[in-house]
Amino acid sequence: MHTLYYAPGAASMAVHWLLLELGLPHQLVSVDLEAGEQKRPEYLALNPNGVVPTLLIDGTAHGEAAALMLHLADSHPGAGLAPAPDSSRRAEFLQWMFHMANAVQPLFRQWWYPHEPAGANHADAVRAHAEPRIAAEWDRLDRHLADSGPWLLGRSLSAADFYLAMLVRWSRKMQRPGTQWSHLAALAGKLKSRPSYAVLRDREGLDEW
Amino acid sequence: MHTLYYAPGAASMAVHWLLLELGLPHQLVSVDLEAGEQKRPEYLALNPNGVVPTLLIDGTAHGEAAALMLHLADSHPGAGLAPAPDSSRRAEFLQWMFHMANAVQPLFRQWWYPHEPAGANHADAVRAHAEPRIAAEWDRLDRHLADSGPWLLGRSLSAADFYLAMLVRWSRKMQRPGTQWSHLAALAGKLKSRPSYAVLRDREGLDEW
Repeated sequence: MHTLYYAPGAASMAVHWLLLELGLPHQLVSVDLEAGEQKRPEYLALNPNGVVPTLLIDGTAHGEAAALMLHLADSHPGAGLAPAPDSSRRAEFLQWMFHMANAVQPLFRQWWYPHEPAGANHADAVRAHAEPRIAAEWDRLDRHLADSGPWLLGRSLSAADFYLAMLVRWSRKMQRPGTQWSHLAALAGKLKSRPSYAVLRDREGLDEW
Repeated sequence: MHTLYYAPGAASMAVHWLLLELGLPHQLVSVDLEAGEQKRPEYLALNPNGVVPTLLIDGTAHGEAAALMLHLADSHPGAGLAPAPDSSRRAEFLQWMFHMANAVQPLFRQWWYPHEPAGANHADAVRAHAEPRIAAEWDRLDRHLADSGPWLLGRSLSAADFYLAMLVRWSRKMQRPGTQWSHLAALAGKLKSRPSYAVLRDREGLDEW
């Protein structure tokens, strides 16, 4: 049994989605981010970063959404959501997982918490810069999907696609949401139409993509 | 045979270090970052991000330093630098790899390229904010090592420690370099004293830690 500490639509969403895709028994614990529950001592004891998700695996708390996605996919090879460690596609798969974690997701952090890089006085400038930088990432990812899609690993759906779909969703209120890029929109649309997303949407109360 | 495209002391350094630790035959190709070689078409064909490292594995180009470190460690289980996929320590290992890629390394990018988050006019403010944010990461990592060290995974040296040592080195010119934290300094010092580091230092021409 896994226990997921989550907030609707946050980075925990992709982990929740994989738990559903993989058919793993789990329970959910809601963390109220607006009330600051993620910074309370009892939660910090589980997750010293004070962020969601936290996943209890056999009673031990683990964090970092991308790490959890990778670990869940690797631990359930029958689902085929991660190339095996000895596969020739493995390096490519890991490259996409880390590219999103290192280069794409941090730009969203700048968009959501624009006071962090340079203080509250410069938050507007940070936010204005984040959008075109995210658009440049969409350009590159969309071009890759055009050349080698429809999934990040070509014909093989993987955990990396669920990660990407979550990031595309996060851009939905930007001036140019990721769905304005046709191959990104197709990828996200196909994942949204899976039965697992209907359950995810209901459980997290996501009233919009 | 692996081929590593590198620049001295850049993110390629940790991949180079692991190639040496693992005793893997490899050749090196220097990329002159100051001359902008990483943005030339022939290099972008290998690495669309225009950054080092690129590692050719069986003739195929792969990027993302942390992904390459993870892949090299997983591919050579005899060296014991990554818990096996079915190990109870695996999730913890992946959590550290992604924490550094997602939360720590991006702060160094803000310090080195302070014009990126908010434009050249706000570069000084970005740089001034990056240092205390990195210090907060050192606080957390040092506390973890104090509680559960000497390595990130306790008594087991792993690829994550080489990654951390590289990040600590990157802070050497900050007002408070990571080596001012005693457990980080001990970790970095032990890794620097390994024979692989002497070779790395000579090959990359690193005249200072």
